[in-house]
Amino acid sequence: MKEDIILLSHGNGGQATKKLIDNFILKHLGNKILNNLFDAALFNINGKLAFTTDSFVISPLFFEGGDIGHLAVYGTCNDLAVMGAKPMYLSLGFIIEEGLPLKEFEKILVSISQAAEKAEVIIVTGDTKVVEKGKGDGIFINTSGIGIVESQRDWTKRKIKKGDKVIISGTIGDHGISVMLKRLGVKTTSLVKSDLAPVNSLTLPLLDRFNGIKFMRDPTRGGVATVLNEVSKNFHVEIEVEEATLPINTWAKEASELLGIDPLYMANEGKVLIIADNKQADNIVTFLHAHEKGQDASIIGKIKDVGENVYLKTTIGTHRIVDTLKKDILPRIC
Amino acid sequence: MKEDIILLSHGNGGQATKKLIDNFILKHLGNKILNNLFDAALFNINGKLAFTTDSFVISPLFFEGGDIGHLAVYGTCNDLAVMGAKPMYLSLGFIIEEGLPLKEFEKILVSISQAAEKAEVIIVTGDTKVVEKGKGDGIFINTSGIGIVESQRDWTKRKIKKGDKVIISGTIGDHGISVMLKRLGVKTTSLVKSDLAPVNSLTLPLLDRFNGIKFMRDPTRGGVATVLNEVSKNFHVEIEVEEATLPINTWAKEASELLGIDPLYMANEGKVLIIADNKQADNIVTFLHAHEKGQDASIIGKIKDVGENVYLKTTIGTHRIVDTLKKDILPRIC
Repeated sequence: MKEDIILLSHGNGGQATKKLIDNFILKHLGNKILNNLFDAALFNINGKLAFTTDSFVISPLFFEGGDIGHLAVYGTCNDLAVMGAKPMYLSLGFIIEEGLPLKEFEKILVSISQAAEKAEVIIVTGDTKVVEKGKGDGIFINTSGIGIVESQRDWTKRKIKKGDKVIISGTIGDHGISVMLKRLGVKTTSLVKSDLAPVNSLTLPLLDRFNGIKFMRDPTRGGVATVLNEVSKNFHVEIEVEEATLPINTWAKEASELLGIDPLYMANEGKVLIIADNKQADNIVTFLHAHEKGQDASIIGKIKDVGENVYLKTTIGTHRIVDTLKKDILPRIC
Repeated sequence: MKEDIILLSHGNGGQATKKLIDNFILKHLGNKILNNLFDAALFNINGKLAFTTDSFVISPLFFEGGDIGHLAVYGTCNDLAVMGAKPMYLSLGFIIEEGLPLKEFEKILVSISQAAEKAEVIIVTGDTKVVEKGKGDGIFINTSGIGIVESQRDWTKRKIKKGDKVIISGTIGDHGISVMLKRLGVKTTSLVKSDLAPVNSLTLPLLDRFNGIKFMRDPTRGGVATVLNEVSKNFHVEIEVEEATLPINTWAKEASELLGIDPLYMANEGKVLIIADNKQADNIVTFLHAHEKGQDASIIGKIKDVGENVYLKTTIGTHRIVDTLKKDILPRIC
């Protein structure tokens, strides 16, 4: 039936658009601010603002551990959270391909609603566009987010120096590897899933307690290797990662060996990479271990010197450069 | 040459992404905040915030009067401006189809840069995704925007009542009709072009001077008819529009008659629809006439009574209902 799919008319601003907004979007995401349907949401705010944006084009839309709806909320909240901001307000922009089943759209709206509640943010403004069949791919979602940074949580003025430690809050590569297996159609066990989760409940208490945290990032697209290379280049430091200390789930390790991929480059969607003063590193890991989302936290490396490279000290004691990605490993992972 | 187009690797977060950001995006859009390339932009702000988002999927990307780059900046700035906000910060999210010529991408970046300067906003955070050929359509752009609303400019608490006048700041339908002609491949004169422009230089002085302004909207997708229907439904008022008072360019009128379309439903991208107290309406129009962007301003209707409909009083004196759009007139107009 024609009524069960997204049509071009859902994007024309007229009756079909209004029905889609009222019967689907506001039904699941409505709140006092969004319901106004003004051209812009209005609210009072004071202080240091964090503002970020992310478009989500993941394929497939639904995967083990979540879907594009959760991803769109957590992805943007996590970008705020690692900057020391408490995520507060999100915008939501849909670009839908004509023909998307309304049932799938509604499932995604439910995921967005649940994820927003879990991350304690509200959707305050939005936009829906529809493109012709063959000019999109199901649905793309953009979320932009606003958060407030309390001054003690702002790490951006602190200096990374020799001896600082690199900490990861948990196992690496779970999102990227599980989505890759899903795409390949590999039959997997219930253990195999994305680590998709909001990290603000982790980052904000950490920043309140440890003033020796000098950098935080959620290692998504390009993984831990890409973030460390950015740090190395931007702050002119040499970083050594110790292979033996990398927390990797057994299934992820096996899949990586089988597929010939390196978990260091695989996307994470619920992890935090931290660079912290050597003196506080052990206490940070102890704090993480006591948190439900940090049980596999580990010190995985250190700042060695001035320089421009990231090295891996392998389990057999050799060193190799961990370079930035030259080729595609996995497009459309987020 | 492969180097002259967008590749999937431009979206993988690695070396190609970094080159695209450094050699294209920062080259044209770089500023003190954006250059940090943090996960979120940080800045201080105090007061009543306006926050909005819009995705732009217009086809073709380049049209008479501008391109998707100008549109993405002005579209979002205008959403802020009609809410009484001074547009300040924009985010920028690209979803690019593999194969887009880098030359076209750079042309769009130049447009964004020029438009941001003209609208007096800065791009502070961004994101770039690439999808496979055939899964997108050249480029889609999301912009989200933040502005500050000074209290005297906030019209949202004022009440629309019988006798209030409907004012339009200039000719209607120019964007929609010109893009339609372009798509149809019609050879046109130099007069035929989109009205694409920022409206903050119009809306903010108006709101400072006239406390009788009770509603403002930029009538984009769905045009003036759609905005008036929203007002009618949301505020439970009957609105009468007088056909003879509608400012329409001669070329737009002729094209509409030829194509059998109604300019009332055609998108505008540089116009403001205002509802204001009867006592101030003439002065508002006088003020608009003195402004370079308001020379064709006109009182086009009034609030008649309580009700739920919009009526057009035609030039021959009959009345007909101006309904909301039921079918597609023109998908992907913005």
